[in-house]
Amino acid sequence: HISPQENYFSRETLDRLSGKRTDEAWLEAKQRKPDTVYLMFSNLSPMVSTPQEDNSLCRFTYETVKDLLQKPATVLIFLGGIQETPAWFAFSTDEDAAELLKLCTERNCSFPKMPNRDLLKLNEEEAGIVAQARSVLAWHSRYSFCPTCGTSTKPEEGGHKRICLNSECRSLKGVHNTCYPRVDPVVIMLVIHPDGNQCLLGRKKIFPARMFSCLAGFVEPGETFEDAVRREVEEESGVQVGPVQYISCQPWPMPSNLMIGCFAVAISTDIRVDENEIEEARWFTRQQVIDSLFREASPAFIAPPRQTIAHQLIRHWIGMNANL
Amino acid sequence: HISPQENYFSRETLDRLSGKRTDEAWLEAKQRKPDTVYLMFSNLSPMVSTPQEDNSLCRFTYETVKDLLQKPATVLIFLGGIQETPAWFAFSTDEDAAELLKLCTERNCSFPKMPNRDLLKLNEEEAGIVAQARSVLAWHSRYSFCPTCGTSTKPEEGGHKRICLNSECRSLKGVHNTCYPRVDPVVIMLVIHPDGNQCLLGRKKIFPARMFSCLAGFVEPGETFEDAVRREVEEESGVQVGPVQYISCQPWPMPSNLMIGCFAVAISTDIRVDENEIEEARWFTRQQVIDSLFREASPAFIAPPRQTIAHQLIRHWIGMNANL
Ligand SMILES: Nc1ncnc2c1ncn2[C@@H]1O[C@H](COP(=O)(O)O)[C@@H](O)[C@H]1O
Ligand SMILES: Nc1ncnc2c1ncn2[C@@H]1O[C@H](COP(=O)(O)O)[C@@H](O)[C@H]1O
Ligand SMILES: [Mg+2]
Ligand SMILES: [Mg+2]
Ligand SMILES: [Mg+2]
Ligand SMILES: [Mg+2]
Ligand SMILES: [Mg+2]
Ligand SMILES: [Mg+2]
Ligand SMILES: [Zn+2]
Ligand SMILES: [Zn+2]
Repeated sequence: HISPQENYFSRETLDRLSGKRTDEAWLEAKQRKPDTVYLMFSNLSPMVSTPQEDNSLCRFTYETVKDLLQKPATVLIFLGGIQETPAWFAFSTDEDAAELLKLCTERNCSFPKMPNRDLLKLNEEEAGIVAQARSVLAWHSRYSFCPTCGTSTKPEEGGHKRICLNSECRSLKGVHNTCYPRVDPVVIMLVIHPDGNQCLLGRKKIFPARMFSCLAGFVEPGETFEDAVRREVEEESGVQVGPVQYISCQPWPMPSNLMIGCFAVAISTDIRVDENEIEEARWFTRQQVIDSLFREASPAFIAPPRQTIAHQLIRHWIGMNANL
Repeated sequence: HISPQENYFSRETLDRLSGKRTDEAWLEAKQRKPDTVYLMFSNLSPMVSTPQEDNSLCRFTYETVKDLLQKPATVLIFLGGIQETPAWFAFSTDEDAAELLKLCTERNCSFPKMPNRDLLKLNEEEAGIVAQARSVLAWHSRYSFCPTCGTSTKPEEGGHKRICLNSECRSLKGVHNTCYPRVDPVVIMLVIHPDGNQCLLGRKKIFPARMFSCLAGFVEPGETFEDAVRREVEEESGVQVGPVQYISCQPWPMPSNLMIGCFAVAISTDIRVDENEIEEARWFTRQQVIDSLFREASPAFIAPPRQTIAHQLIRHWIGMNANL
């Protein structure tokens, strides 16, 4: 149920209404409305209910959470809304998880322990909302001191800004990125063999057995996506890349990456793996990839789950020249 | 002299040799080599010599700068090299600028005061090198304290990492983005009228008189480029956008943005400007844009300089359906 152009974590259900972030009176009034929706995070995991295999977000009302919102360790962020329909907020709390779970009337609630796995069980709408909420809450949790002067900072603008409490601080003069949430661009690429019928996949030591996926790496300062693709592929596999084509991108809230999905055409084929990062890299044929995606018996490798942009890039590639 | 696919600040002349960043012995040996090139920054501006209109980077040897490198406020970063040819480093110092200028034997040297203007006068190779150097040095200048605990941090890995000096800090357990340079993705888009023959340009109050350029805005956490384009255009101009197409990107080291250039097809035409950010936004016809780019007498507006991706997007658009 993912459309070809849409990646998991990327659906925008809410209007962010960013113009309202500076309107404290509006935000305060919205906070108290009975139809306002609150999502609760503990340790950067949202409380979910798991009646079946899937997870769904537990939604709280102002009445239920208002005491928690008063606690000094709570961070509240405004997520948005849809015109006049309910506003959505998320908050993180460090209160005891067992006590928090008692606040919920839904069945089988929990704070999932493995975000990389458990956040992939939400539906598309909720995944999109969690992408924003978890990234911004993770930023609050890691950036509560001013990197410019070391003083504490405090949230502002509905949780989309933090300002330094040291009135002499440079970060208060003009606009500084230190005050805004961080988004880390990462290139992730399917490297295509010069013969057009094989692709390069690699595995990290931490991957499940036999799983191979696309190579990926952080974009560095002063670098384009295209050059980052060429550099990371060369570093990790020794393969040289020529043309690079952007396909689609995916927010990945672990904690706040933006995965930039590309096809990369190789101009060399010898593999020399960087063993610090990659355990093995291999060229797979189109047929091996098809067998793996469509779960033939004993495929040559196991593909990453459909919720990853790596999976979508691989699927897009096999659809490109084959008669499927 | 910019190829259609290449934006200013994006040429990669040096191999970053990122595998060498952790090799302290290699880095130290390279630092002392007589052919190693040092670039000197003061207040985030490189020393340049301006014999004519253009600027060129002043290059220093180890002998000339070794005393400066010992000063506690100096930050040194390794930029890369080309196989066995000279290694390149950049450093920032807060010593007196007049004294620093005396170290140089070239003519008409200075530390330009307006990076937004003066850094656009370098040649393509040097602009690409400055894009990396200035972004990373700006990060050191703004991020010298640990955002997680407020303690001081110190540079590592050839200046591509900072680690917290508090041995109990969470940022030392596992991998944390707080330790790595920040890159801020920004979408910048040419919005095309539903009729295909007009485009939307806006002006900020700080622009030179009559200049109009593409709309732009920071990508937020949990958002794709395409959704960021739609949100920012709606926020700044009230125009609704449908399809979005990525064209190319450009590092913009003021201090460390990555401009993601797109075409965006409008599905509405009424303009309602956000006056906090934009002074005016207008639809311009293709002919008005052509007149402006090719400097006809009294064009309807003045386009941004060729070194900006905005200029390149506009130029790309007029080349698309017109007989030029
Ligand atoms: N923003 C960042 N966040 C996390 N790790 C980073 C970041 N930038 C660079 N790194 C380093 O990049 C490594 C992962 O390599 P790669 O994803 O291939 O670039 C991490 O283990 C870090 O050492
Ligand atoms: N990373 C960032 N760096 C600087 N300003 C930011 C950042 N993120 C959000 N902003 C805010 O975005 C405004 C510029 O608006 P826009 O470029 O349209 O998103 C700035 O004045 C800041 O208030
Ligand atoms: Mg990698
Ligand atoms: Mg890598
Ligand atoms: Mg990397
Ligand atoms: Mg803007
Ligand atoms: Mg804006
Ligand atoms: Mg914005
Ligand atoms: Zn500060
Ligand atoms: Zn710390």
